[in-house]
Amino acid sequence: MANGQNLLCEKVKITSNFWNRYRKLVAKTVIPYQYNTLNDNIDVKLNKDAFADMRFYDGKIKSHAIENLKIAAGITQGKHSGMNFQDTDVYKWLEAAAYTLKYYPNQDLQKKTDDIVELIGQAQEEDGYLSTIFQINMPKRKFKRLQQSHELYSMGHYIEAGVAYYEATNNGKALEIAKKMADCLDENFGPESGKIHGAGGHPEIELALMRLYETTNEKKYLELTKYFVCERGKDPEFYDKQNIEDGIDNDFWPELKEYGEGYYFADKPVTEQDTAHGHAVRCVYFCVGLAHLARVTRDKELLDASKRLWKDIVKKQMYITGNVGQTQRGEAFTTDYDLPNDTVYGETCASVAMTFFAKQMIADNFNSEYADVIEKEIFNGALSGMSIDGTNYFYVNPLFMNPIESKDGHDKKHILTRRQPWFGTACCPANITRLIASLDQYLYEIKGDTILAHQYIANIAKFSDDIIIEQESNLPWEGEVVFNIENPNKKDFKFALRIPNWSKNNFKIYVDNKAIKPNVTEGVCYLDIKDSSVKVTLVLDMDTHIIRANEKVRQDIDQVAVQRGPIVYCAESADNKDDLWDYKLEEEPQFSFRYEKDLLGGVGKLITNDVKVLKKEEFDDGELYSFDKKNKYHSSQLTLIPYYAWANREEGQMSVWLHE
Amino acid sequence: MANGQNLLCEKVKITSNFWNRYRKLVAKTVIPYQYNTLNDNIDVKLNKDAFADMRFYDGKIKSHAIENLKIAAGITQGKHSGMNFQDTDVYKWLEAAAYTLKYYPNQDLQKKTDDIVELIGQAQEEDGYLSTIFQINMPKRKFKRLQQSHELYSMGHYIEAGVAYYEATNNGKALEIAKKMADCLDENFGPESGKIHGAGGHPEIELALMRLYETTNEKKYLELTKYFVCERGKDPEFYDKQNIEDGIDNDFWPELKEYGEGYYFADKPVTEQDTAHGHAVRCVYFCVGLAHLARVTRDKELLDASKRLWKDIVKKQMYITGNVGQTQRGEAFTTDYDLPNDTVYGETCASVAMTFFAKQMIADNFNSEYADVIEKEIFNGALSGMSIDGTNYFYVNPLFMNPIESKDGHDKKHILTRRQPWFGTACCPANITRLIASLDQYLYEIKGDTILAHQYIANIAKFSDDIIIEQESNLPWEGEVVFNIENPNKKDFKFALRIPNWSKNNFKIYVDNKAIKPNVTEGVCYLDIKDSSVKVTLVLDMDTHIIRANEKVRQDIDQVAVQRGPIVYCAESADNKDDLWDYKLEEEPQFSFRYEKDLLGGVGKLITNDVKVLKKEEFDDGELYSFDKKNKYHSSQLTLIPYYAWANREEGQMSVWLHE
Ligand SMILES: [Zn+2]
Ligand SMILES: [Zn+2]
Repeated sequence: MANGQNLLCEKVKITSNFWNRYRKLVAKTVIPYQYNTLNDNIDVKLNKDAFADMRFYDGKIKSHAIENLKIAAGITQGKHSGMNFQDTDVYKWLEAAAYTLKYYPNQDLQKKTDDIVELIGQAQEEDGYLSTIFQINMPKRKFKRLQQSHELYSMGHYIEAGVAYYEATNNGKALEIAKKMADCLDENFGPESGKIHGAGGHPEIELALMRLYETTNEKKYLELTKYFVCERGKDPEFYDKQNIEDGIDNDFWPELKEYGEGYYFADKPVTEQDTAHGHAVRCVYFCVGLAHLARVTRDKELLDASKRLWKDIVKKQMYITGNVGQTQRGEAFTTDYDLPNDTVYGETCASVAMTFFAKQMIADNFNSEYADVIEKEIFNGALSGMSIDGTNYFYVNPLFMNPIESKDGHDKKHILTRRQPWFGTACCPANITRLIASLDQYLYEIKGDTILAHQYIANIAKFSDDIIIEQESNLPWEGEVVFNIENPNKKDFKFALRIPNWSKNNFKIYVDNKAIKPNVTEGVCYLDIKDSSVKVTLVLDMDTHIIRANEKVRQDIDQVAVQRGPIVYCAESADNKDDLWDYKLEEEPQFSFRYEKDLLGGVGKLITNDVKVLKKEEFDDGELYSFDKKNKYHSSQLTLIPYYAWANREEGQMSVWLHE
Repeated sequence: MANGQNLLCEKVKITSNFWNRYRKLVAKTVIPYQYNTLNDNIDVKLNKDAFADMRFYDGKIKSHAIENLKIAAGITQGKHSGMNFQDTDVYKWLEAAAYTLKYYPNQDLQKKTDDIVELIGQAQEEDGYLSTIFQINMPKRKFKRLQQSHELYSMGHYIEAGVAYYEATNNGKALEIAKKMADCLDENFGPESGKIHGAGGHPEIELALMRLYETTNEKKYLELTKYFVCERGKDPEFYDKQNIEDGIDNDFWPELKEYGEGYYFADKPVTEQDTAHGHAVRCVYFCVGLAHLARVTRDKELLDASKRLWKDIVKKQMYITGNVGQTQRGEAFTTDYDLPNDTVYGETCASVAMTFFAKQMIADNFNSEYADVIEKEIFNGALSGMSIDGTNYFYVNPLFMNPIESKDGHDKKHILTRRQPWFGTACCPANITRLIASLDQYLYEIKGDTILAHQYIANIAKFSDDIIIEQESNLPWEGEVVFNIENPNKKDFKFALRIPNWSKNNFKIYVDNKAIKPNVTEGVCYLDIKDSSVKVTLVLDMDTHIIRANEKVRQDIDQVAVQRGPIVYCAESADNKDDLWDYKLEEEPQFSFRYEKDLLGGVGKLITNDVKVLKKEEFDDGELYSFDKKNKYHSSQLTLIPYYAWANREEGQMSVWLHE
């Protein structure tokens, strides 16, 4: 972010009650819990149906992730256990731990993380290679089956962790390992003859190399990112050729054969890609690296590709909660305007990835639509991935759940009724954890002499030139946001405020308690700051809004969703005794808001009496179909809770969309 | 049906225009087309995505079904190709051909069918065994992996064909082969030590043995049926034990491993089964045999089981079109009141099987609800399986189809947009064909001195005692049904008429043109006939009815279906230019009916102006979600066609349920 005369953001300390509850939970409960899981100190209660591909576990119910590193390091003996990307569970945890050390210093934890960095260093090979499954079980197959090997994905996750850990603790070894890894890839991949001309089946390395580039400023990492981004999909037969050479039936997941190159987002070169498709996390991780690369290089074709893919996701394939990936089959995107609520996948990782993508986009272009998505994810789709107590996780985040349908074991068996303590593929738990732990990085963006505050999460931020901005806010429950700006050097700068999409028709800005006529461009209001002390007050619209989907989305026809502030609401059986689909909202329903501090970690509920419910007795003769009988209703009441907080009470139905 | 003093039905000749079009098509086009397919005279255009499990085809695009029999008979050399139940394609065709010979005598065809019977006799082993894949490719595995072998299923299909062919042509060889087959099973299966204590993974043999028993009156076939019906599910580990002995990984379909015994309806003994579950065709075929056995033996436990399973399907798991089997995953039932319209399976075979099940139930108990289902299937869910021209078939029959969703290759890839000329698993084409060819058997049931006319399809029927009933009717388009009863011997008998559920509140009966006060019991009206010539007129309700589903069916909330007479209607893009989900019917919409003789083989359309459609421009800013914007509509028109006739014009959306 730093460039010549640019302002710099030096430190952000989150003071928000809402987020500090989560961030303390992460530091005090989640990080130790996940440490014990990764170290096999506790048995993992793997739900056989919950994304636990037990083929890879040899009947074990341990994570074995640290053990794999120890075996690769020669410290212990044994075979690899777990997925071929099991290493990343450690790396993502390490990255999250690094972030917590910044806001919750902990010597005991730092000793453990230092040791893990040491262990990773020992497991890494001379040339920088590190993927324990290949090192332990199949050293001859290194880089020989990139379509499914996850080697670059795994190393990318370490690089992210190494950079984060270095930035948090100044541990040089952590960065050195990351660089050595990137150098190894640079040795093996590239246009030069003798190198491999291809990219990994699961993007991640691209976004990781960009982070390494920004930290080290070493051009070769930028070049390597560009190579991976642009090589992808250039030769659509690259994987097939590798697979034949490696032994056609030597697949890690034979069932992936039927998906084709689109699953890997490797069906076309990036410049020709115009829809998000294939495996959602693969696709969005790729977009993160692409957008970051485009932003730094100012390559027009890449910038255009980022925007095209952004628009396709956000304007055509994103759920109201921010979740993406409409189908379990391939954990994938489907097609534009196809948004089934009951069979959706909406992987937590995909929402986390959307936050990363949005951050790259807003960093480049101060347009509120990007920051709107960050807000949507952190308060809804991504946050839903973690339980209120921090130790249970959703992989799949549906917008409708009926326990009977989930348990019958057919099309909805991926829609779990409860969060799980762990998964065979444990990508999601550490992913939502690292997002919450690094949330301070998502509040401001700076360009030249403009500071953009785009998330209204209470904090105190320190910038260069001794500028301090204290943000007071009780969002997501209350709409007044106060910025106390201290500018002791009376520097001339611009303070920019994002106007959230849910408030764009109704907001007020006061400067030193005087209302101003806001100057809004692309959803961002710009203020000139000159004085040594300025108070800016933003008053947002906290009315309850009724949301309708575009009429091209057939699944939401005749239904509405309810949003208040950034929070998308849902109905749960715990509050509503009838089948949720039998409620029908009146036109323009009025909701009353009630904050309950002891409910679900403290949530604001919405309650309406403008609702009726189908009379059950009409059908009590047991017929499945009736002729010419009109529906009869009686008046009722409907209580909604925030979507992110669902499935934390007794098991029951949940629905975001409500009949009207 | 014949028993002492009982009346007998000697011959039924269908004269209905609607059905004669189909029945001529079957005799003149479908039977020759399928003959050429089975004999590899024409290449089969197998759609790779259309249930063509190419693993079993060795790259061939031929049926190979006759060739397999020739190889087994020693006439030609080679390996088996196709599914392990490929033989049944020949048997079901032979059965259908037998039925056509009764209404459309054809010496050339009869020469071919005689030859095929001869060939089958040559392929059959000394002991009666016949399953070409085992004989040719794996003779040592006979009866060793019943869970997936389809041996009993295949032999059952021959037995049905043999009985039908014998009854149609008096070919003794055809019956002899069937008996020899049944004797082979009797030798190998049963409670005696040394025999196999188990039943086949795919029920069929039960219903086939009951037909053989009724034709031969040989008690041992009844006993063997009872054994198979009652043994099923008694030892839930039977298949596992066989599989281990046969080699655990020697599966025909390894992917079936995850389904458990419920898939085979073998999780519990029949007396404990209370829900339809697992593979729909397996489950319903089993019910057919069960109901037939129960009817003949009067075994109370079995009669109760039949009724329990019937009620669960018809009152809780059946689509308004009569289709059953809600999910592609395992081609299976799911749970009560779960009726997704867009991911439904609704296999044509399952609807044909429901017709068989209903026939067994109505034969036992003159309750209109059973005959209602026969009517529902033959005019809707089953008939949808065949194109208007007879040579293309649906395997899956959805209630909603959007080409974009079907083609994106994910959760709806089994929902084909067009009927197919053939399938790798070609169970459905011959199944709907044999149902149409044998439709004359589904019009009357007799008990003692009561003749029940339960289907209103024009025909002339000859009964014992020289009774002739001529039924004049132009159903499904017109509602007046006239029965001219000739009773030259002035026999005292009861003539019973089913009152269809769609007409139960509005019908009239005239005897010799005089209105009578009907005496209705369980939906059946009984009349005493004594005179030598009686005219009975039944006037049915041909108003258009609006159907709503039980409020427990969440997928149909706020939607209605439209039915007129026995015909369930649907909307297609071919008649309606907006996205089908954007139409909204007004309260109590009025439809006008218009018969078009040149459309789709002659259909009655329904047209309404009581409908509005969402204004597209409301969303033209390209946003996926709008805040507090109300839906705006403009008035429109909606045209509906019969469900069975969908997908016979240009490709487009189809929906049975319409928003209201
Ligand atoms: Zn994940
Ligand atoms: Zn079938």
